[in-house]
Amino acid sequence: MKVLVTGFEPFGGEKVNPALEAVKLLPKEIKGARVVVRELPTVFGKSLDVLFNEMEKEKPDVVICVGQAGGRYAVSVERVAINVDDARIPDNEGNQPVDQPIFPDGENAYFSTLPIKRIVEAIKKEGIPAEVSNTAGTYVCNHVMYGLLYYASRKRPDIKAGFIHVPYLFEQVVDKKNTPAMGLNEIVKALTVAIEQSII
Amino acid sequence: MKVLVTGFEPFGGEKVNPALEAVKLLPKEIKGARVVVRELPTVFGKSLDVLFNEMEKEKPDVVICVGQAGGRYAVSVERVAINVDDARIPDNEGNQPVDQPIFPDGENAYFSTLPIKRIVEAIKKEGIPAEVSNTAGTYVCNHVMYGLLYYASRKRPDIKAGFIHVPYLFEQVVDKKNTPAMGLNEIVKALTVAIEQSII
Amino acid sequence: MKVLVTGFEPFGGEKVNPALEAVKLLPKEIKGARVVVRELPTVFGKSLDVLFNEMEKEKPDVVICVGQAGGRYAVSVERVAINVDDARIPDNEGNQPVDQPIFPDGENAYFSTLPIKRIVEAIKKEGIPAEVSNTAGTYVCNHVMYGLLYYASRKRPDIKAGFIHVPYLFEQVVDKKNTPAMGLNEIVKALTVAIEQSII
Amino acid sequence: MKVLVTGFEPFGGEKVNPALEAVKLLPKEIKGARVVVRELPTVFGKSLDVLFNEMEKEKPDVVICVGQAGGRYAVSVERVAINVDDARIPDNEGNQPVDQPIFPDGENAYFSTLPIKRIVEAIKKEGIPAEVSNTAGTYVCNHVMYGLLYYASRKRPDIKAGFIHVPYLFEQVVDKKNTPAMGLNEIVKALTVAIEQSII
Repeated sequence: MKVLVTGFEPFGGEKVNPALEAVKLLPKEIKGARVVVRELPTVFGKSLDVLFNEMEKEKPDVVICVGQAGGRYAVSVERVAINVDDARIPDNEGNQPVDQPIFPDGENAYFSTLPIKRIVEAIKKEGIPAEVSNTAGTYVCNHVMYGLLYYASRKRPDIKAGFIHVPYLFEQVVDKKNTPAMGLNEIVKALTVAIEQSII
Repeated sequence: MKVLVTGFEPFGGEKVNPALEAVKLLPKEIKGARVVVRELPTVFGKSLDVLFNEMEKEKPDVVICVGQAGGRYAVSVERVAINVDDARIPDNEGNQPVDQPIFPDGENAYFSTLPIKRIVEAIKKEGIPAEVSNTAGTYVCNHVMYGLLYYASRKRPDIKAGFIHVPYLFEQVVDKKNTPAMGLNEIVKALTVAIEQSII
Repeated sequence: MKVLVTGFEPFGGEKVNPALEAVKLLPKEIKGARVVVRELPTVFGKSLDVLFNEMEKEKPDVVICVGQAGGRYAVSVERVAINVDDARIPDNEGNQPVDQPIFPDGENAYFSTLPIKRIVEAIKKEGIPAEVSNTAGTYVCNHVMYGLLYYASRKRPDIKAGFIHVPYLFEQVVDKKNTPAMGLNEIVKALTVAIEQSII
Repeated sequence: MKVLVTGFEPFGGEKVNPALEAVKLLPKEIKGARVVVRELPTVFGKSLDVLFNEMEKEKPDVVICVGQAGGRYAVSVERVAINVDDARIPDNEGNQPVDQPIFPDGENAYFSTLPIKRIVEAIKKEGIPAEVSNTAGTYVCNHVMYGLLYYASRKRPDIKAGFIHVPYLFEQVVDKKNTPAMGLNEIVKALTVAIEQSII
């Protein structure tokens, strides 16, 4: 069994991306499954090129893309991705699509095929705040989640695939007043648990 | 050099108190200073009896009392304690004073004699959110901070003394929606840094 | 031109529903368009029976359903409704569906056909906080928005239809600590502006 | 009976100050008491010069100073002012005192002599969120509250005096994400109620 896990490069002026820092620290093997980690550019379009390429090459059984959701209090297991790019800030190559469909021939939305509620319960059992989220936004995170599920629905309907948003790291918020954050070890633990739940 | 650090027992229906959990994990010695840790009851009056007793016995050079401030995002180094007990919920022995002076012959308020801004800067340098707080509330935390500074101003004007509030632990907020928290290691690190700054 | 506007009865232990209070105060005519106001039961299924019945009867050109989103800071013009009922609390008749599709033959999601960004800008121009929201949740509000757009896509593709969430009223939060709210006049003004933008 | 009510000029880049806007709209007479309204400069020192001057001239029986507390959810009736100026941003004339006593011969703190809990209850009874606050900060608001109570304790121990903080107006937060606010009518109503409670 093989699990592909991705994290994004930093964006929006941040020096780190908690998603990327965390996925890099995941063990290479979890409960017998191989864990393959890849970095995605925080760029509309290009992020999906890299992701699809890795999926062709690695043929994973499970794909979990991970992104930063600054301002959230809990690890957010996303339920749904919608067919729209609507960027409040430019991506890392200056693209800023407004109200554009991601794939004109795609569904209006795709639902995660990960066991999202079981993942949330298992993370909470570890003493780490987690929740099902009903929006992955309309920036590169939703773009990648939508693209992943669009691709999976057409070419790999057998796999489990979805997206998890993680809060800021504490170091990112020392100068941001009243902003929730987590430590890297809580995030790594939460993602490990998510992988464990996704391979059974 | 000797530092007395206190934490409270759990209160308000919580099963743990992050302040107590953290102070128990402090090293016995920090930069050459002995660190003595004591638990205080979350009870008006009795908490100060225990504290004053320990201060007589241990003759510390620095006293840092630590308490939980559920809902805060950052380690809060308190600036001031005010001469009033005003409890929204009963303490652990059922006392619920309303608008009572703590010591009728005390000042309206006492300022912390810890280097509060230096402590905040040093904690932030470790990547942990910290801030100077201008209110320790009117519950047992303020009661203990006020009593500590009242006592010190009269009997031990040579010592440094003050109070630090810490956020909930993550495990305390898994079922509290949108509530900030920290890991135990961040809190222990922050308190260690606070002690380091207080003994120089 | 005719605009059908709906509000829900109170739910979740609240005594009032700001959506209902506000729609009742709307003028009968806005810029030449007739405004017809109806109350919907906060009940899965039944809410849509009432809505579809009114739509058959009134043949509106625009339909705006309005609901309470306790905890939000701004008037939220919803972008999308998803094909899932997932109730954290029972509705007003005790139904609590979990992860059920609303219409098994419907799309995964439907996008609002209101001019959502123009509405948001126009409300903000009045000095009232407003935003595009990417989730209407998974309770009766999303249920009604989804049902409305499912129905419109099949039977009335010519109309404009969508959903607006409004914050708590101030009177609802006097005993809820740190909870955002609005006055009834701001909400009524915001809905009036939304109608104005939807009929041009 | 005469009530002096003050509001501050805008500061910190804001175009309006809700405190000033609200006090200007107060009735000239409330339950038989004359209401005199004055504007204070948001300047350390000078604000107190103006206030003390008005107090000499008007000989009020009650003084309520009102200020903006951006980020608060409720009308905050302040309990205590502390003897320290510590400005995070410069005042309107560029002064930025750090950890300076306001009056070196003053108490560490003064408690409001307004009936603060009765005021809070009466405002809540009107359906408007209100709370007792235990900190007025360390900027010009605390400076004025402290100076007012210092002056009253020495020269006018017979009067009732204190400070009320009010949230942002809605128009101030349309471009500030997730920031609580109030309408001007709620603030005016709350201040009217506060005056009513202070003159009985």
